[in-house]
Amino acid sequence: MTLTPRTRLIVAMDMLEREKALKVAANLEGMVDAYKINYPLVLSCGMEIVTEIAKFGPVICDFKIADIDNTSRLIVEQVVKAGASGVIIHAFVGMDSMEACIKAADGIDVYVVAEMSHPGAKWFIKPVADVMARRAFDVGATGIIAPATRPERISQLRVIVEDLLILSPGVGAQGGSAKATIDAGADFIIVGRSIYNAEDPKAAAMEILKSLE
Amino acid sequence: MTLTPRTRLIVAMDMLEREKALKVAANLEGMVDAYKINYPLVLSCGMEIVTEIAKFGPVICDFKIADIDNTSRLIVEQVVKAGASGVIIHAFVGMDSMEACIKAADGIDVYVVAEMSHPGAKWFIKPVADVMARRAFDVGATGIIAPATRPERISQLRVIVEDLLILSPGVGAQGGSAKATIDAGADFIIVGRSIYNAEDPKAAAMEILKSLE
Repeated sequence: MTLTPRTRLIVAMDMLEREKALKVAANLEGMVDAYKINYPLVLSCGMEIVTEIAKFGPVICDFKIADIDNTSRLIVEQVVKAGASGVIIHAFVGMDSMEACIKAADGIDVYVVAEMSHPGAKWFIKPVADVMARRAFDVGATGIIAPATRPERISQLRVIVEDLLILSPGVGAQGGSAKATIDAGADFIIVGRSIYNAEDPKAAAMEILKSLE
Repeated sequence: MTLTPRTRLIVAMDMLEREKALKVAANLEGMVDAYKINYPLVLSCGMEIVTEIAKFGPVICDFKIADIDNTSRLIVEQVVKAGASGVIIHAFVGMDSMEACIKAADGIDVYVVAEMSHPGAKWFIKPVADVMARRAFDVGATGIIAPATRPERISQLRVIVEDLLILSPGVGAQGGSAKATIDAGADFIIVGRSIYNAEDPKAAAMEILKSLE
């Protein structure tokens, strides 16, 4: 099962409170293609939050898995068990770890971090980003993660990963433009704060969707 | 607060079941310098397991954090809140992420993955392992993680990280020798299966400690 682009919008649920997460998830039901959940929310609320939010739509566990193959496999198994539809892993740990994740994913989507947008990415990630993106393709990943803050990189990575999905965080508060990101070749934009911190998350999401038309 | 080498033994709690984890932890109380807990156990049992095991001794959360600075900070805050004494992070996400972790650690230990021993490490980690180890030193980490399966690398990394602690996984089932690892310059050995899967974990730990004399 692979995520189908309908609204092209994924919301990053980067809050810590269960109540707020469930409220935002319910509010956005049908308007977003997926909910992206990271460790802070899970450590704060337990893995049950994945199952609870999955009632409103597909959940992607943004766990940026970066461990040896056996541990990576065990983490993905917990993700599958909780009812998520996808998981995000790192390429940096190599082919065997990525393969273990894809095998354990049991049909749910596996997205590989090809590039990151924070300043620290310049040290070790950027020099090998293109190679990591291609390794994600080689290993049979569903897609890659590439920053919306630099649309020119999305265009370059699009060529490298051929028809894999590209999910792009960094739209909104971090400065990326939704339209420029999709135009550059991304399949989905990931938006966090500008939606979930808005007084009316649904209206905020609607505005972003309008900007894509 | 920095971990003090007494027995020099850290047990990797790589199981999924709360009951087994608590039983092994109680059994080893006083015989190990710390309990290393990874995500599979936490996702299966909730962060409460960290608090519960911390009653028996220092807990190191082996979360191999590899996210942007803000998310990394939020994860470390959950680790501190749960009562852990240390956390393991990745260097490859760069200086800002590492700095955010160390700042959020609020005095608990931060160990940086400098090198890994699985086959996939040859792709992107080994070529920059020495640089990552030095960056861990520069950023003020408590120590680094380096594989017991290759003692010659521990000796090399010892020079690079000067007086930082070196914690070495891979002793036992993975083939590393406890004595060779300590002789090469590691401060702690990390042992998993050969202890927690033993019929008598305490006796298994005792045997390893004897081999160090």
